[in-house]
Amino acid sequence: MSRHLRIVLVHPPHESDASLRAAALHAGLMEACYDLVASLPADFHLPEEIARLQPDMIIVDAESDARDVLEHIVVATRDERRPIVMFTEDDKQSSMDAAMEAGVSAYIVAGLKPERIKPVLSVALARFRKEQKLLDELQDTKLKLAERKVVDRAKGLLMSRHGMTEDQAYQRLRTMAMNKKLKLAEIAQRILDVEDLLG
Amino acid sequence: MSRHLRIVLVHPPHESDASLRAAALHAGLMEACYDLVASLPADFHLPEEIARLQPDMIIVDAESDARDVLEHIVVATRDERRPIVMFTEDDKQSSMDAAMEAGVSAYIVAGLKPERIKPVLSVALARFRKEQKLLDELQDTKLKLAERKVVDRAKGLLMSRHGMTEDQAYQRLRTMAMNKKLKLAEIAQRILDVEDLLG
Repeated sequence: MSRHLRIVLVHPPHESDASLRAAALHAGLMEACYDLVASLPADFHLPEEIARLQPDMIIVDAESDARDVLEHIVVATRDERRPIVMFTEDDKQSSMDAAMEAGVSAYIVAGLKPERIKPVLSVALARFRKEQKLLDELQDTKLKLAERKVVDRAKGLLMSRHGMTEDQAYQRLRTMAMNKKLKLAEIAQRILDVEDLLG
Repeated sequence: MSRHLRIVLVHPPHESDASLRAAALHAGLMEACYDLVASLPADFHLPEEIARLQPDMIIVDAESDARDVLEHIVVATRDERRPIVMFTEDDKQSSMDAAMEAGVSAYIVAGLKPERIKPVLSVALARFRKEQKLLDELQDTKLKLAERKVVDRAKGLLMSRHGMTEDQAYQRLRTMAMNKKLKLAEIAQRILDVEDLLG
């Protein structure tokens, strides 16, 4: 890696940042040459702080109440996904499930040893990238399906209302899209909108 | 869980199953009440053994050469995905990336302590289920898109060759599908196949 990973540490509001756990985490991050840019409590300021700091990774250190912290993390990463690593002693199945739903890349129970921090973060990054690729592919496929539906409806409308053949309707859409410098699905949506308005 | 998780342990062919590592792993599995059904070397028999045993989870214990073992695991889970947990000392980035590509649910470096086994497996299961949901959704969306393309092509063919309107073409496809008890996309594909044959 050409530059150091910028990390934001998040802890429950009532848990001290000066605990033994926190010390182990700091030592591990130092050893791994990561750049700890902030240590923040999980409260309603968190989303704006994350948006401002733009960290490469979020590490959550929640000794007990993993779920409480997760709620704030979900809000803070809703618009932009980031790798999230969670160190905790909370081994409740419901907390683990909630962490997976929240997109947590690594959920580590009772594993906070300085020498283990670096490989855990490396695995979490690799996992985040893999899952991001999958999510991108899903979004892309959904978009293609949605666009196809809109284009089909617009074509059908041109055919039924304006007596075009399918090929004529398609060529008309393509010409309009090129002239307006819009995507085929965008021009199709405009046609549908106008017909909606005109009834 | 109503019944014990059935686990197959996989180790490199030349690494002993009687090592200290293996002992820690066995102790952790016992403590977690998991059912270790077999301990197998990673060789070309592995796929058929996995197919025969149908374990709920595969645990790989590869002290050094994670990638060698992974190759066999990939083949053994190609047709049916299973949760895979990997305990190793191999912290090379390339090995981690290869593990993610292979669909490994947990890649644990230097974390083989009996008391950590159970939470690691629980997190791995939760992650596997989450990823499986995502993969299912992706497959489903891809299928819908593919089906839509086939139906559109069949509709276009009915319209151009048989002078139908779009609505007539769609109704014809629906009727044929109902009569033959086939999906819309299946009847559409048959129409395209026949037209292909007839030119």
